[in-house]
Amino acid sequence: MEKIKILGFVGSLRKGSFNKELMNAALELVPEGVAELEVFDLEGIPPFNQDFESSMPQRVMLFKKKIKEADAILIATPEYNYSIPGVLKNAIDWASRPYSDNSFEGKPVAIMSAAGGLLGGSRAQYHLRQVFVFLNMHAINRPEVIVPFVTEKLDSSGKLTDHHTREKIRELLEALIKLAKEKK
Amino acid sequence: MEKIKILGFVGSLRKGSFNKELMNAALELVPEGVAELEVFDLEGIPPFNQDFESSMPQRVMLFKKKIKEADAILIATPEYNYSIPGVLKNAIDWASRPYSDNSFEGKPVAIMSAAGGLLGGSRAQYHLRQVFVFLNMHAINRPEVIVPFVTEKLDSSGKLTDHHTREKIRELLEALIKLAKEKK
Amino acid sequence: MEKIKILGFVGSLRKGSFNKELMNAALELVPEGVAELEVFDLEGIPPFNQDFESSMPQRVMLFKKKIKEADAILIATPEYNYSIPGVLKNAIDWASRPYSDNSFEGKPVAIMSAAGGLLGGSRAQYHLRQVFVFLNMHAINRPEVIVPFVTEKLDSSGKLTDHHTREKIRELLEALIKLAKEKK
Amino acid sequence: MEKIKILGFVGSLRKGSFNKELMNAALELVPEGVAELEVFDLEGIPPFNQDFESSMPQRVMLFKKKIKEADAILIATPEYNYSIPGVLKNAIDWASRPYSDNSFEGKPVAIMSAAGGLLGGSRAQYHLRQVFVFLNMHAINRPEVIVPFVTEKLDSSGKLTDHHTREKIRELLEALIKLAKEKK
Repeated sequence: MEKIKILGFVGSLRKGSFNKELMNAALELVPEGVAELEVFDLEGIPPFNQDFESSMPQRVMLFKKKIKEADAILIATPEYNYSIPGVLKNAIDWASRPYSDNSFEGKPVAIMSAAGGLLGGSRAQYHLRQVFVFLNMHAINRPEVIVPFVTEKLDSSGKLTDHHTREKIRELLEALIKLAKEKK
Repeated sequence: MEKIKILGFVGSLRKGSFNKELMNAALELVPEGVAELEVFDLEGIPPFNQDFESSMPQRVMLFKKKIKEADAILIATPEYNYSIPGVLKNAIDWASRPYSDNSFEGKPVAIMSAAGGLLGGSRAQYHLRQVFVFLNMHAINRPEVIVPFVTEKLDSSGKLTDHHTREKIRELLEALIKLAKEKK
Repeated sequence: MEKIKILGFVGSLRKGSFNKELMNAALELVPEGVAELEVFDLEGIPPFNQDFESSMPQRVMLFKKKIKEADAILIATPEYNYSIPGVLKNAIDWASRPYSDNSFEGKPVAIMSAAGGLLGGSRAQYHLRQVFVFLNMHAINRPEVIVPFVTEKLDSSGKLTDHHTREKIRELLEALIKLAKEKK
Repeated sequence: MEKIKILGFVGSLRKGSFNKELMNAALELVPEGVAELEVFDLEGIPPFNQDFESSMPQRVMLFKKKIKEADAILIATPEYNYSIPGVLKNAIDWASRPYSDNSFEGKPVAIMSAAGGLLGGSRAQYHLRQVFVFLNMHAINRPEVIVPFVTEKLDSSGKLTDHHTREKIRELLEALIKLAKEKK
């Protein structure tokens, strides 16, 4: 049986992003032989302008190609100002266009979020779920990977070592792979 | 009495944006002698990266300066994928940072949206309102300026000429100016 | 092959409810031989009180039983005050309890809404979709059946006769039945 | 100067409700001589039916009267199924009707929520804030009183004794009273 291809991307561009650490953990936890996870860096995707839909930047075209080749999508993101980071939403906006070529069409998707504070990025997750309705994506309900007080869950090198959080990420990957198999 | 300074910006970068037409109508409708509306173009604001918070791009610094000088904010925006356009959210993310220097702090704000379709961009408005909670902005409740089927409300040159819509924009400006006076 | 059992309920108790008319149209449009739709009246479900979870009112027990027997759920609802009607949410709250006996667990669900005004009840739909995440339900993305200006779509006896709206309801039923078959 | 009248109500009917404890704390913390807080029990408000708008139940009429007499509203509520409890929403639906007699019109409002789990009821708060837009209420932005893991903040008799949480409630009351004075 062919491996399930997961494309991951992170809603924060900063080097030490906690959500990059969630994605790094997912890279370690993806079940070998069953699925593979490739991470796409949103760096270099310029602000969306519909006037350039027919001559998209190369980085955007590559992003769209990678999404289309994937069986499932994994997003790790902080919340900015109680919603989706503009950087992440902007990348999604590009990839959803033009209307007749929505790269996300019909794809399963899972979300993780981490934050230094209490609500762990959850507010971005619920806004993203509304976006998925338009994109016709199928979002995993459980587990919800929402990681508050994330700094307590990292080791001194910044790596996500907390056992409980890693288990949740493993469960999320399993649920995503299961749905991707059903939809394939 | 000093004039109320309103800063406006638009959530779409495309040249023929319907929401730019809403803003153009607002420019005509702002009550002379009482208030003035300046429009800031979000073109040129790069994707946000927290690593560069202490050395912000010049365009962002100008945006922050303009917001701070304003007594009130007016946003015209489409919805993209059932939420806030990434381009708009990204500009807001920059202007909200660093945490100790949120340019929007305490400011009154009004939203308008137009779309070709039925729901008129309303879904972006409700997500924006949640963002305003974190930014500690004071959003106008009424009227809600949500303009569906906007192409029927433009003349042949693309100008927003529909009387009813223009009246709503006038009312919105009045409510915004009233609140800005209270908060001044 | 066994017929797909759909349980429907309506978020408004008033006799002439537009959303009851949507449900009546669904009753006519459900594909014979493939699926059957039973409508449960929310009248008689009292306000939820967790203290009575272990001795639920009989009407609630019947509601829970009907939900569990169903392969899929169909909800027709107005929005009240920009969100889910309390009556509808209250019925959902009962049926979700106790925590270990969520009657909705894993069920496919579709939503329809109608309103006299512009936004057609859409704001209730997006709040409901967030509720479905907790309930672990699988909501149909498309078509979104949102019916604005519904009075123009009824005949003189109040029946929903608008062809386009009826086609959308038919498509929604098809999508719901398809998902119910996959999940069975 | 006249005292600011605050009307409080709680979104849970159960006897040992954590959110009733938040309200009890508010009763102790309301600044004497400046404001007074009366708590209205939502018990006895039946499910809303628009057909009975012109002959409302007596309990509802009393609720509407109390709201109208108040200068400000304070709501303590859990989240049920990631949204507003049906019981609370139902009471709000009654009090908002008929359309020409919305009892909440123009009133300042503050929200508190407590929960046993991580997100502390926050998801109900953001849905409530959308409801307030329609009701034309003015919601306090800060502080957000969201109390996760509430059982750790109660003493053995179930009373909310946690100092930090009580300080937040005090701040919230102050912000609410300040806004009520401005709007009076």
